[in-house]
Amino acid sequence: MIVVKVGGGKGINYEAVTSDLAELHAAGQKIILVHGGSYETNLLSEKLGHPPKFVTSVSGYESRYTDRQTLEIFEMIYCGKINKSIVEMLQQKGANAIGLSGIDGRLLEGSRKDAIKIIDSEGRKRVLRDDFTGKVEKVNLPLINLLLDNGYLLAITPPAISFAGEAINVDGDRAAAVVAAAVKADKLIILSNVPGLLRDVKDESSLITQVDKAFVEESMRFAEGRFKKKVMGAAEALQEGVREVVFADARVEKPISAALSGKGTVIS
Amino acid sequence: MIVVKVGGGKGINYEAVTSDLAELHAAGQKIILVHGGSYETNLLSEKLGHPPKFVTSVSGYESRYTDRQTLEIFEMIYCGKINKSIVEMLQQKGANAIGLSGIDGRLLEGSRKDAIKIIDSEGRKRVLRDDFTGKVEKVNLPLINLLLDNGYLLAITPPAISFAGEAINVDGDRAAAVVAAAVKADKLIILSNVPGLLRDVKDESSLITQVDKAFVEESMRFAEGRFKKKVMGAAEALQEGVREVVFADARVEKPISAALSGKGTVIS
Repeated sequence: MIVVKVGGGKGINYEAVTSDLAELHAAGQKIILVHGGSYETNLLSEKLGHPPKFVTSVSGYESRYTDRQTLEIFEMIYCGKINKSIVEMLQQKGANAIGLSGIDGRLLEGSRKDAIKIIDSEGRKRVLRDDFTGKVEKVNLPLINLLLDNGYLLAITPPAISFAGEAINVDGDRAAAVVAAAVKADKLIILSNVPGLLRDVKDESSLITQVDKAFVEESMRFAEGRFKKKVMGAAEALQEGVREVVFADARVEKPISAALSGKGTVIS
Repeated sequence: MIVVKVGGGKGINYEAVTSDLAELHAAGQKIILVHGGSYETNLLSEKLGHPPKFVTSVSGYESRYTDRQTLEIFEMIYCGKINKSIVEMLQQKGANAIGLSGIDGRLLEGSRKDAIKIIDSEGRKRVLRDDFTGKVEKVNLPLINLLLDNGYLLAITPPAISFAGEAINVDGDRAAAVVAAAVKADKLIILSNVPGLLRDVKDESSLITQVDKAFVEESMRFAEGRFKKKVMGAAEALQEGVREVVFADARVEKPISAALSGKGTVIS
């Protein structure tokens, strides 16, 4: 079993991702897709006059400030536009895909953070309380198995659902890590619009090709911005028994096959 | 088994619909929800600078002109905002709901109309070719049963999928009728923002309370605008063996229970 996370950044080649996915699925590979949608959420938020805001936690991680209106825009893009277009592409390529959010069947369940401590733009600590974000702690594994065992290919997207039943924005990379752990995946492939973990974020040729899993925490110092969550997800997946995590490029042809053949940053 | 269709018109009380639904589900009633989203799709289309267009077929039925951009907006509202908010409300009320579009698992499959003959605003006949609309002809009944048998409550939304794998806009009322026929429902309840079929569309007290199913075609003369599709759906469901169709009000408390107790227009 492999779990593939495809980011929602600019330049992602969804046609290539879904072609590769459909071929692997047809060849009998058990595979689950988890996807994002951040870039298009930003665009729609701007168009609707509710521009995106990002906050930095006291521990240095960036996340989207998700009030209720942002959550609705988030759902329009993640669950509406992107999830359904991915499912449509997969169907056109012969894979009988089903798209589910974490709310559906309580697929991805977790705690909503009732208060987030952030550092504001002037460097002061502040507490945010109207934020619908959280962290996936529980996966509805029977539902996943029910659908996989009946031949469906799953395309899973945030949001997740809180234990109280509220939709919550969760990080897609870390959600994919929890899914990979739950299904006991051999590999977690995290595709985004860069070739992998870079020594120098401005230089795509500075790819780090191998990381021993004992050093995954240390590799965090090369991660910038949103990539920090990917490294955190990788660490969590490896800790929970996933054998290998690959950070790879979603902009190339056959991006999943490339990652499976060792392209990108392989952490094992 | 009952199938409930809730419209996407202005004034729909989704809290009341989902409360009633969750209670009936908890009491053991087998139930499927099919929903719309037309009103909010119009709002978002306006906001995004791609205003809604409606066309009237030569046979007098109105439908949304659905080019690819409209289809994306349609998916944002139907599959994103409305479907996920309904699923969230149901989850908060204790029902383990799953939201699916007709694309997911080829749940609702049909032909895309490659050309629609319309009457334009000047009364001339024209042919539209870039329209992604169609009609549901096939339901993935094994998928529905798989999820119902495992205790999930289904919230189903257009679009459907063409046999060629394209997302297609289909009428929600007629889709609900096809679902009701496929699952051999006893009743199809069609909720909208009017009390039922009215003798005079401007007078809510002119409700027609009973129609013998032999006269369902004749009742079409009381249906205006979008209500024509509801009557057409009712006729199709009854013809396929559904025992009773009720047109009822989605703006009241316990709208489904009210319809089950005979409120609205009962066609049997």
